[in-house]
Amino acid sequence: MLSLASFTSRRILCIRHYCKKTPTKLRVSEAISGSNLGANIKIQGWVRSVRPQKKNLFLHVNDGSSLQSLQIIASSDQNDPLLTFGCAVEVTGLLKQSPNQKQPVELEADKIRVVGECNPLDFPFKIKERHAVEYIRQFPHLRCRTNAFSSLLRIRSEATAAIHSYFKKNGFVQIHTPIITSNDCEGAGELFAVQPQRPENDVDEKFFSVPAFLTVSGQLHLEVMSGAFSKVYTFGPTFRAENSQSRRHLAEFYMVEAELSFTQSIEDLTEVMEDIFKSSTEYVLAQCAEDVALFHKHVSPGHRDSIDYWLRTKFPVMTYSEAVDILNRSSQNFVFPTEWGCDLQKEHEKDNQDHPEHTAAAVDLLVPGVGELCGGSLREERLDLLRTRLEEVGLEDAYSWYLDLRRFGSIPHGGFGLGFERYLQCILGVDNIKDVIPFPRFSHSCLL
Amino acid sequence: MLSLASFTSRRILCIRHYCKKTPTKLRVSEAISGSNLGANIKIQGWVRSVRPQKKNLFLHVNDGSSLQSLQIIASSDQNDPLLTFGCAVEVTGLLKQSPNQKQPVELEADKIRVVGECNPLDFPFKIKERHAVEYIRQFPHLRCRTNAFSSLLRIRSEATAAIHSYFKKNGFVQIHTPIITSNDCEGAGELFAVQPQRPENDVDEKFFSVPAFLTVSGQLHLEVMSGAFSKVYTFGPTFRAENSQSRRHLAEFYMVEAELSFTQSIEDLTEVMEDIFKSSTEYVLAQCAEDVALFHKHVSPGHRDSIDYWLRTKFPVMTYSEAVDILNRSSQNFVFPTEWGCDLQKEHEKDNQDHPEHTAAAVDLLVPGVGELCGGSLREERLDLLRTRLEEVGLEDAYSWYLDLRRFGSIPHGGFGLGFERYLQCILGVDNIKDVIPFPRFSHSCLL
Repeated sequence: MLSLASFTSRRILCIRHYCKKTPTKLRVSEAISGSNLGANIKIQGWVRSVRPQKKNLFLHVNDGSSLQSLQIIASSDQNDPLLTFGCAVEVTGLLKQSPNQKQPVELEADKIRVVGECNPLDFPFKIKERHAVEYIRQFPHLRCRTNAFSSLLRIRSEATAAIHSYFKKNGFVQIHTPIITSNDCEGAGELFAVQPQRPENDVDEKFFSVPAFLTVSGQLHLEVMSGAFSKVYTFGPTFRAENSQSRRHLAEFYMVEAELSFTQSIEDLTEVMEDIFKSSTEYVLAQCAEDVALFHKHVSPGHRDSIDYWLRTKFPVMTYSEAVDILNRSSQNFVFPTEWGCDLQKEHEKDNQDHPEHTAAAVDLLVPGVGELCGGSLREERLDLLRTRLEEVGLEDAYSWYLDLRRFGSIPHGGFGLGFERYLQCILGVDNIKDVIPFPRFSHSCLL
Repeated sequence: MLSLASFTSRRILCIRHYCKKTPTKLRVSEAISGSNLGANIKIQGWVRSVRPQKKNLFLHVNDGSSLQSLQIIASSDQNDPLLTFGCAVEVTGLLKQSPNQKQPVELEADKIRVVGECNPLDFPFKIKERHAVEYIRQFPHLRCRTNAFSSLLRIRSEATAAIHSYFKKNGFVQIHTPIITSNDCEGAGELFAVQPQRPENDVDEKFFSVPAFLTVSGQLHLEVMSGAFSKVYTFGPTFRAENSQSRRHLAEFYMVEAELSFTQSIEDLTEVMEDIFKSSTEYVLAQCAEDVALFHKHVSPGHRDSIDYWLRTKFPVMTYSEAVDILNRSSQNFVFPTEWGCDLQKEHEKDNQDHPEHTAAAVDLLVPGVGELCGGSLREERLDLLRTRLEEVGLEDAYSWYLDLRRFGSIPHGGFGLGFERYLQCILGVDNIKDVIPFPRFSHSCLL
């Protein structure tokens, strides 16, 4: 005869059996949030730690949705030699409050299935070992599986969203400026040329009929758009064939560029620069608190204080002359002594004729550790002056379209560029630019 | 002695004088919204029409913030021969309700200043003339000043935001996959090669030490990331050195690509494809109602009905065999007759071994008028099979990193790409792909 107790327990078994058939698929971040306590769930991800004990087996499973992994608790008979650091698993079970303070919830596993094995002897990253960035960098196809780099990629994704969100909120139209261009915007020689891989039948005939390069800046294309929109921006890859393997240079990097119409002074630009820096940083600090904290704890201790100070302080603005004065009064011995006049000449930058010193109406935003984060200027809108300059260098025909912009409904305008990787280095305190981009390209290196 | 009336009127003058000194700078879209009625405002933009009457002068000024222009009303003595179609102006005055039904508000101008002249004889676009797209396309630096193209650019900007917003809301991490790559993802020959413009001292030495190309797809790089994140995407430029000037091809175009981990079937992909199409389209229709209506009225009459039908209908799904059957039963005479087996072989696509016909686990989303909008597949995750294939083509060493992905914590995964320009053509009913991208690049054309 069945007692009431056994009858009840059979019913419970029956319900659990039903639940097991339809576990809710959750991401680790959703499971950790605690809103599904008591639910039968399914988690899919990669094992970050395995800790077999006498009675129980503890795993940590991560699926990239957060820095935190989900703790799995299973009976030790569920252990399996294939359950190793790095393997892919699918775990179903009951999500419950954890008795341990360290994590709010844990998954009591009914079933653990190894989806993809990972031989720990061959896998280049070892459990609980902190590998040097130089070592990790050798594995561009696997480094996203380390805590630090997966945090970086989440931060980069959110920082990208922050920048788009800033511009959208402030009425800027996003323009996809072209990657391949026949312009040579900066007049510099550090260009990549582009041509079809297969030789054309007629070797003299070019694919585009003109020499084509990878863009070094979307400025000229944004200037085109600033003749119809009062605010435009672009955010995309930019290229320099710079023969450098330094911690500061990449051959392919991302730039945020903005162009504003009807500008009155350089302050129209500095205001946006400061705004975008502060609003994006606040957004990232709020959205990726844990990921950012990892960097500020292990990579750049003390850096968070600097960030907080920058966010609550108005950025100091000084003229070029003031900066030269300060540097000259400094007790430091510079490798390159500063003299008034150095590194000032830049084409397409408008002279500040109100000032006797005759500087250019240009501005850089310099940040500690990284150096130049933004560079901007008011553009020359005087048709005669531009035409004369272009004639002098023999480019009047090639740039007749640029003169057209000043010929038809010309307006005072200006803009700036912000190096996105440098921005990430700046807020995270990362020393090497190669560690803030998914697939770094530089002289003698184009892995994958 | 001053009457009360004259005293009051002097006070009013005084207030108006004060207001005039600090007009609020508004964008045209803000002014039109009507929330600043009665305010003294400043508007900056470009003249879209000039209509001098006996007593009054009417202007329409546009600043790219909306398709609608703001009507300016001024006394006819404010007319100026420089006030022409296309010139840039700054107008200050009182924003008031319009007596005319056609526009809700108008600006009663105190002052109109011509900021940049525009000689209507030289300017390629003529007032009130509807120019053919082929004509407009000849002026890539000025076409943003036409109504249709500035609408297009606003729509493109919002559609970009819609796509990012969809992925963010659904837990995808955005990855900036590289533009320059040493992979040849599709095994096709239509690649652009990249090398520094200046010849190296040693001509045999390559900048990247390996041959480098412009990316044709971010798929392999997303596959890397799908080993650490359950959902990733990329949205950026992609390249094909295709010798075509057709209305369907560009050498540089934008692709949205997504990769999902722990996929079970092709339905995991079709669900996301359909979702992203519908949610982005609903977003764009809501955010850019006026701009979209311009296209559906003048460019593709009747198209809006199709869009609405697609949005409320579940996309029909059919197998390759069913599609071949339908085509074979069709009464149409095709240029290329369909036979079972044509255009099926694609590398890296997993065979559907459950089906006797042995098709690939791949899917295309085809839309009327545009053709293939999306293409996706489940990726081959079986290490042995992949290794054998790579050995057969002698690429085992070059792609050992790709095998590593299957060696360490491999997971079933799949993804798809969506052609962004084709998406815009599809929702707007635009025939030629060159008319939905700011600066089209194709065979023999790389303007600006």
